[in-house]
Amino acid sequence: MEQFVVGVDIGGTNTEYGLVDHCGKVWGAGSLRTATYSDFGDFVRDLVTGVRGLVEALEPKMGSGVMIVGVGVGAPNANHERGVIVDAPNLPWRGVVDIVGELSGYFNDIPVMLTNDAKAAALGEGTYGAARGMRDFLVITVGTGLGSGFVVNGELMYGYGGMAGELGHVTVGAVLPVVSGELRSGRVCGCGRVDCLETYVSASGVVRSFLELSGGDADHSATTQVTAQGVAQAAMAGDVVAIRTYELTGAILGRALAVVVAITSPEAVVVAGGVARAGELLLGSARQEMEQCLMSQYRGTVRVVGSGLVGRNAGLLGAGAMVWRGCVSGV
Amino acid sequence: MEQFVVGVDIGGTNTEYGLVDHCGKVWGAGSLRTATYSDFGDFVRDLVTGVRGLVEALEPKMGSGVMIVGVGVGAPNANHERGVIVDAPNLPWRGVVDIVGELSGYFNDIPVMLTNDAKAAALGEGTYGAARGMRDFLVITVGTGLGSGFVVNGELMYGYGGMAGELGHVTVGAVLPVVSGELRSGRVCGCGRVDCLETYVSASGVVRSFLELSGGDADHSATTQVTAQGVAQAAMAGDVVAIRTYELTGAILGRALAVVVAITSPEAVVVAGGVARAGELLLGSARQEMEQCLMSQYRGTVRVVGSGLVGRNAGLLGAGAMVWRGCVSGV
Repeated sequence: MEQFVVGVDIGGTNTEYGLVDHCGKVWGAGSLRTATYSDFGDFVRDLVTGVRGLVEALEPKMGSGVMIVGVGVGAPNANHERGVIVDAPNLPWRGVVDIVGELSGYFNDIPVMLTNDAKAAALGEGTYGAARGMRDFLVITVGTGLGSGFVVNGELMYGYGGMAGELGHVTVGAVLPVVSGELRSGRVCGCGRVDCLETYVSASGVVRSFLELSGGDADHSATTQVTAQGVAQAAMAGDVVAIRTYELTGAILGRALAVVVAITSPEAVVVAGGVARAGELLLGSARQEMEQCLMSQYRGTVRVVGSGLVGRNAGLLGAGAMVWRGCVSGV
Repeated sequence: MEQFVVGVDIGGTNTEYGLVDHCGKVWGAGSLRTATYSDFGDFVRDLVTGVRGLVEALEPKMGSGVMIVGVGVGAPNANHERGVIVDAPNLPWRGVVDIVGELSGYFNDIPVMLTNDAKAAALGEGTYGAARGMRDFLVITVGTGLGSGFVVNGELMYGYGGMAGELGHVTVGAVLPVVSGELRSGRVCGCGRVDCLETYVSASGVVRSFLELSGGDADHSATTQVTAQGVAQAAMAGDVVAIRTYELTGAILGRALAVVVAITSPEAVVVAGGVARAGELLLGSARQEMEQCLMSQYRGTVRVVGSGLVGRNAGLLGAGAMVWRGCVSGV
């Protein structure tokens, strides 16, 4: 029997799932439109149906049969210890949803494991991507928000209660004096506080900075016309304001990374997610500002790199890797 | 044979050493005046002589004899992987000194282990002190400087190259806007940068803040007349400026702790060291400011407490605990 794990990446728009072997090869994948499932039970039922379809399609190709040894799930607002998703603002289900309990009801006698989406991405990059072989690193996913997953001594850092890695909600007062001549402070975050890192370093943060720099009024939800990707394209085409937008966004990220380095001293920072597709536009500036802010003994020791899994789903692979690590020692 | 480890805490003024059993009881201790040893070989020789004296004094009391199973050393600027101390500004030996190599020459066939002094204090508090039983916490030692040792998933966080935990050198731009009406920014740190946390939260930082607040001129090395302990005593006696000094020092620490919590989500922050003897004068303000700066889900989850080893040497006990952890599983 060939062994596989089920990797599941639950996102606000789509949920992707696949059968992953222990080398990180995906032998079949599918997706659901998360937002269309107002009922959580329906969602899980369709997810399981989809997975069973993948197994049935794969079995004829595997002479010795297909064995599912575990299910790994990455999701926003996941509580890994309780196996539940709690009050995820970007998912359609309110309150506490028992994802591990529900899935365990379908998959008898095999482990079902849950982690936070950014932590899953960290496991994905660490097992198969840009941080492969590293024991101390972090992965930052810059998209709608800013998520982060830290690996310390080769293990995910969960902290007390599982809430480590909220780098997106470090407040960036430290940074603003530098850029305050160009950007305004006082951005209200979804968490209710002001000037969290993700109000600057995220898709909406990039749009807002661009509008501010270009003299537009960010308070009038002009975000419907401008996107972070559009700003990146304009920058690559030479638009001065767009270039400056990414420079400042990178500089703010770099300042925050200097703090992270003094605390955790990682080997690398992997910057993934949609906004990171701007590549060196963002990373070059982040690296430069970080280096300038570091104590001398750290300088030149920390790599700031893009994802090693572009075009693949780091969260799905990481959710799978979580199960492989749990099931098979030494993976 | 009764088993003991040798715990050694190398400090700029004194080096303390003792025989520690696995419950953390010290069965004999001694000290050397570190600063008087210009020659490192002489220092190690006298240290070993002192330890042998302790063993000889203890043997008659132990019917079955004394067995030393390892030597643990905590020291500033320690590189635990290489077993050396590198360019420690507060120690009399320049360059790289091979403390593990030298001690191993005297103690045959038993492990000699080295860690950074703040990490040793973290192991001490985690094994025998205020963080006993916790798997995720940090210990901050506030004295001449500000050191920190983080424990993540039950293990010390060294990071890549062993340099994790330099919280003293996080720059506090984030904090200064809050207090800038009262304190001046632009403090030059021993590391060559400006406004590192330890330029505010340390013995000399407290003195400088007190002098600034009291209208004195901190640039004229009035530090010879005012001490952090003196300011603490004045505060306890009701001196308004001294009280405000500790409030601001605590607030700056609390702001930095809010950042630490968002990244590492500890169960507790143990604040140790000479300056922490000011107790609630410092901790109350740190706790209050930290709580105000935290995201709601962290609020009320992180304990900020003083050392559980007051009057004992956390570094010495921690250096011993490091050996016990290495030699005996489950300690």
